[in-house]
Amino acid sequence: MIKDMLRRQRIETPSWAYGNSGTRFKVFAQQGVPRDPYEKLADAAQVQVHTGVAPTVALHIPWDKVDDYGDLARHAAEVGVSIGAINSNVFQDDDYMLGSVTHPDARVRAKALGHLLECVDIMDQTGSDTLKLWFSDGTNYPGQDDIRARQDRLAEALSAVYERLGEGQRFLLEYKLFEPAFYATDVPDWGTAYAHCVKLGPKAQVVVDTGHHAPGTNIEFIVAFLLREGKLGGFDFNSRFYADDDLMVGAADPFQLFRIMYEVIRGGGYTEETAFMLDQCHNIEPKIAGQIRSVMNVQEATAKALLVDRDALAGAQREGDVLGANAVFMDAYNTDVRPLLAELREEMGLAPDPMAAYAKSGYFQKIAADRVGGAQAGWGA
Amino acid sequence: MIKDMLRRQRIETPSWAYGNSGTRFKVFAQQGVPRDPYEKLADAAQVQVHTGVAPTVALHIPWDKVDDYGDLARHAAEVGVSIGAINSNVFQDDDYMLGSVTHPDARVRAKALGHLLECVDIMDQTGSDTLKLWFSDGTNYPGQDDIRARQDRLAEALSAVYERLGEGQRFLLEYKLFEPAFYATDVPDWGTAYAHCVKLGPKAQVVVDTGHHAPGTNIEFIVAFLLREGKLGGFDFNSRFYADDDLMVGAADPFQLFRIMYEVIRGGGYTEETAFMLDQCHNIEPKIAGQIRSVMNVQEATAKALLVDRDALAGAQREGDVLGANAVFMDAYNTDVRPLLAELREEMGLAPDPMAAYAKSGYFQKIAADRVGGAQAGWGA
Amino acid sequence: MIKDMLRRQRIETPSWAYGNSGTRFKVFAQQGVPRDPYEKLADAAQVQVHTGVAPTVALHIPWDKVDDYGDLARHAAEVGVSIGAINSNVFQDDDYMLGSVTHPDARVRAKALGHLLECVDIMDQTGSDTLKLWFSDGTNYPGQDDIRARQDRLAEALSAVYERLGEGQRFLLEYKLFEPAFYATDVPDWGTAYAHCVKLGPKAQVVVDTGHHAPGTNIEFIVAFLLREGKLGGFDFNSRFYADDDLMVGAADPFQLFRIMYEVIRGGGYTEETAFMLDQCHNIEPKIAGQIRSVMNVQEATAKALLVDRDALAGAQREGDVLGANAVFMDAYNTDVRPLLAELREEMGLAPDPMAAYAKSGYFQKIAADRVGGAQAGWGA
Amino acid sequence: MIKDMLRRQRIETPSWAYGNSGTRFKVFAQQGVPRDPYEKLADAAQVQVHTGVAPTVALHIPWDKVDDYGDLARHAAEVGVSIGAINSNVFQDDDYMLGSVTHPDARVRAKALGHLLECVDIMDQTGSDTLKLWFSDGTNYPGQDDIRARQDRLAEALSAVYERLGEGQRFLLEYKLFEPAFYATDVPDWGTAYAHCVKLGPKAQVVVDTGHHAPGTNIEFIVAFLLREGKLGGFDFNSRFYADDDLMVGAADPFQLFRIMYEVIRGGGYTEETAFMLDQCHNIEPKIAGQIRSVMNVQEATAKALLVDRDALAGAQREGDVLGANAVFMDAYNTDVRPLLAELREEMGLAPDPMAAYAKSGYFQKIAADRVGGAQAGWGA
Repeated sequence: MIKDMLRRQRIETPSWAYGNSGTRFKVFAQQGVPRDPYEKLADAAQVQVHTGVAPTVALHIPWDKVDDYGDLARHAAEVGVSIGAINSNVFQDDDYMLGSVTHPDARVRAKALGHLLECVDIMDQTGSDTLKLWFSDGTNYPGQDDIRARQDRLAEALSAVYERLGEGQRFLLEYKLFEPAFYATDVPDWGTAYAHCVKLGPKAQVVVDTGHHAPGTNIEFIVAFLLREGKLGGFDFNSRFYADDDLMVGAADPFQLFRIMYEVIRGGGYTEETAFMLDQCHNIEPKIAGQIRSVMNVQEATAKALLVDRDALAGAQREGDVLGANAVFMDAYNTDVRPLLAELREEMGLAPDPMAAYAKSGYFQKIAADRVGGAQAGWGA
Repeated sequence: MIKDMLRRQRIETPSWAYGNSGTRFKVFAQQGVPRDPYEKLADAAQVQVHTGVAPTVALHIPWDKVDDYGDLARHAAEVGVSIGAINSNVFQDDDYMLGSVTHPDARVRAKALGHLLECVDIMDQTGSDTLKLWFSDGTNYPGQDDIRARQDRLAEALSAVYERLGEGQRFLLEYKLFEPAFYATDVPDWGTAYAHCVKLGPKAQVVVDTGHHAPGTNIEFIVAFLLREGKLGGFDFNSRFYADDDLMVGAADPFQLFRIMYEVIRGGGYTEETAFMLDQCHNIEPKIAGQIRSVMNVQEATAKALLVDRDALAGAQREGDVLGANAVFMDAYNTDVRPLLAELREEMGLAPDPMAAYAKSGYFQKIAADRVGGAQAGWGA
Repeated sequence: MIKDMLRRQRIETPSWAYGNSGTRFKVFAQQGVPRDPYEKLADAAQVQVHTGVAPTVALHIPWDKVDDYGDLARHAAEVGVSIGAINSNVFQDDDYMLGSVTHPDARVRAKALGHLLECVDIMDQTGSDTLKLWFSDGTNYPGQDDIRARQDRLAEALSAVYERLGEGQRFLLEYKLFEPAFYATDVPDWGTAYAHCVKLGPKAQVVVDTGHHAPGTNIEFIVAFLLREGKLGGFDFNSRFYADDDLMVGAADPFQLFRIMYEVIRGGGYTEETAFMLDQCHNIEPKIAGQIRSVMNVQEATAKALLVDRDALAGAQREGDVLGANAVFMDAYNTDVRPLLAELREEMGLAPDPMAAYAKSGYFQKIAADRVGGAQAGWGA
Repeated sequence: MIKDMLRRQRIETPSWAYGNSGTRFKVFAQQGVPRDPYEKLADAAQVQVHTGVAPTVALHIPWDKVDDYGDLARHAAEVGVSIGAINSNVFQDDDYMLGSVTHPDARVRAKALGHLLECVDIMDQTGSDTLKLWFSDGTNYPGQDDIRARQDRLAEALSAVYERLGEGQRFLLEYKLFEPAFYATDVPDWGTAYAHCVKLGPKAQVVVDTGHHAPGTNIEFIVAFLLREGKLGGFDFNSRFYADDDLMVGAADPFQLFRIMYEVIRGGGYTEETAFMLDQCHNIEPKIAGQIRSVMNVQEATAKALLVDRDALAGAQREGDVLGANAVFMDAYNTDVRPLLAELREEMGLAPDPMAAYAKSGYFQKIAADRVGGAQAGWGA
């Protein structure tokens, strides 16, 4: 039964994870990096080939802009994946220096809204049902702009996008404490995203990026709360020690990931309605292998969360047995679930160790040799 | 006009600030500390005598429990103050070790709810229109209790209190990141408090304690947001460098206090509907003088916020003039408003320097001499 | 070989963990709590009985003050433990409101120093070789005292204590970011403690309390650095989500504890010269069981750290194989070491599950029944 | 006398502040940005023209690499400035993905060291007496490299640079908590930098970048401590709300800047031996104007710090008068020093308002018109 649950897990990888990324100090180029969305999808397919639980790929517009999305979708199917969420980008045009949908200038706001609506067009063309909205909008200096007026502008844009959504489509609103805005971000926390989504209706939900919180924030509490309110749309998984480090999920605090997955399961969020997406930057490690490791980390946390003896836990909780309840919880966490997952993979016709299988496949050597010349994909393209 | 605004400012001081307080390591006793609620009100009256803007005093039940609240209210009037918000306490009874309204045991929950309803009774008896609810409820260890079930229990209790509120009464729900709970607090952030209050209706509002946030949280954003939603009920003012330090408001970051007061004014929150309360612990400084200094700090921040040239600011903001807008904002902050406030006090028939006037009054020497014997008031009584 | 390493592990429990503790809001009394140092030692002996690796107990003066330390030491031996580090206390006397050894008043400084020297006397009497110095000294408000002059006073006191140390004795200087001081703490970080210790000489070392850092601090880096400098004297183990929460070690971030233990081993610190002490507050969980669980958590982290394949790790590191090196490291962490530890315990003649064995022993029921009347031990006594 | 102190203040601006900068998400290009080091110096000269206290400019190698440094120095003199500190850069070459002087590969370490020694050559050629060393070195994942071995490698490189320093030359070692390394940074805090510098000798000092600390760190304590040890070499001034935001100094927390300047003065650090440098990123505001504002912010904080009544303060501190001492301190901070500084500027033959004077000068319009074509300077060049 735990294996059944794990077998139907779905983790979406992002097209941009296969391109180069870095910090403001330097983007280190890596070998074999894709030059276009087609090559990104081919790389993403490798993750699916070796894990079996990563069948969809999120696109980022305009980084993944193509002339013919139907053709891109066909290519995806050919390599063995399909297109997932569409991610909008209103932070890289020169016009957006002081904001996009919350910009003081109506012209810039209209331009930004135009892009968001175009993303819904692309959803129509690709069959994607999910639009992910992240706004880097904010201010760097006290007084720079009117914090409250920016909320009014935000509400107006969200409403327009909401109205444009078709049957079976939704958007996920992302929040982030800071970066690139350093004084006030316009959607800084889950409360802000939640309040906007509640007003708009059921097609608007909150997405939790695990790297977007203030130090000390209890993320699993937010997960539990949003699920209780029916407003958890999904995750952008990654991990962090300090800020939005975008490291591999589970790398910085695997216990936290386990606690998050436990609340997902306990709150009824382990369904297709919740989007489990990776959003990471493999600045110094190989990208495809980094994605495979990340998918495995989510699987392991999920397996442990599924192992929690819910009856024993409820009993200890009811009796106020602090140490007993904690022990039930930790028993699951302390279990080594790698043998279970290896077994499951073999039952699914996969190699038991995806990292080893990918290494053995020679795919990396092949792309490193083939992809010479052209412009490597990165955050700019 | 700015003087008019400042003249009608109302800052509420808390009865417990006049008693002893400390950290878990030690409560240092001070001289002249009140032994009962009557003496606390007498001390609070000193703050009003010298500042003219602190006419009300918040009570804390059971610390300020008396047999005859009518008599206490008469005493307040005699010394020149009146009774403000009623603060509930469901964190000090031995039954509350694992929670109060969110406790796994229904018996404890019922007891806690009983206390909250008793507080509404006291509101009826004292004429107080505001109930402040702070729940220390939470868990220390992962797995200790069911995070989500605790929200259900919380919602049930809040609903019962809400139903009990009479005409013209409201409650303010306080949030706090951590302490005394160290893993998951049941009302950890403004989003949680907001979501509960929205469901309940207009008599439920959020109170912002300026020391209750994660590091890096932009408090003025929360203030602006809650005002836009009509859900800002008031403030518990204090300041902090690290956690919930409960230092004198304005002592740690006077610029932040200015920014908060600016958003209050800009958002239409500078009215009688918003409760401006102090909530501090004078662990090492004299209590009455500490309250006077704190009231003055709020006044100074308010005066500066009122000085912001709103037209010039809006102009610079509209043009995207980052440095210009920031400069308009900082011009107000950099102004020395102490002469203006001294002038105002003299117009109000007060001494221009409340600290000096209080020192000169000999009140402290008097209580230090008189209040010998008996048990000094503290957090336990 | 790993088992040999684990067999000779020594974890010291603190006498005060067996008494009541709490937050500034409330100290919840528990059943069966010791009334004097003799009963504390009896409780500590239970931890040793069931784990076999906790043979020493730290004392706290004056909480554990007795007339005859020789008698106390004999009692310890009788119940099966011995006396470990002596912890000084210069934070609870009324004179210390504004500091102890850094107080502006020379009389208070002399008093505080007197206490520290008295602690060395007790070391002589008990045979303890380690003095732990924690200074709560600091200021709450900018300007309150001269930050630099306080360093001069601190240096003077440390020097006097250092001079008093006998052959084979040392002191460990503890640092802490904040609490109870909220603006500037006089020994806030490892750098400050290190700089003082370097000047004094080899008998002065730094102790790392795992809950005493700013958010985001990499503790294992500090451990590695201090070991490289020969200045790591030991640990005060506990865990935290926010501030100095003093939860059970390993409860908040077991992966961090593993990383710390790895650096201890890698840096040559897994020896008798390093003091591995617990320093926790069991505010809501039973104390003896809480200590047993904590000892087990340290054992598990140590076992995992010992399992790291150092050769494979060094190889991957040398080649710059980021994912490979991380995988070697995580392989050890992901291993379930509980069977190994159960086996070891049986080889040591212990029950494989110390928690179950303690529960079955009936000790808690016995002390709960016996220890009625008298004043329970806490931080005040 | 205060005016004399302010008149001889020296604040160094960095050449890179005049070029474009941004976040990892986007570098927004601005008008009139310099295309080469000569144009950067011309812009820096504007800051000096209008403030009179910014006569030197820090260079960054290789961003400011030129064939003939003598010629560059002559150009600087012609436009009215001179060359200050030389900043090394061992973080942007592709070889440095896993570190520079701490890299596991000896070849890369040698290359990095070569660059550092070349920077000393440039010091010889330009007459600069200060080398600033910032190492982005660190790791992103636990286990990725050997934390302790990296310290050994760091020590080796620092020693080689130290040996190369000539008469009258020194280096300043910078520390930073995180970014671009996200797990362990090799020089993460002042303690690490201090320990290395102490071992090397008097030509090695610590530089405090005000944006490089963990949340809640008391920076003025570090300043006071380093001054007491004779190890404070200087500052990289900027301000931050969250991480290393690199905003204009004094913009986020002007009270903190005042406290820092107070400790500088009190500790005897207000001399030519201490380098007061700006290190900021004007991502969204105009660069030259941003530098002028920043210089003014430092001047205002310094003026306030100089205004502190040291005798009154010492008296209140000695008596343990918490509120009195804090009041003396705050009296200085609350003073509006802008009139004093305007007066000083007029005495120095400058316009009283540098921002207005610069705006009126038409310089920005001129460079915006002239500097068309060519590649704008940024962090890459």
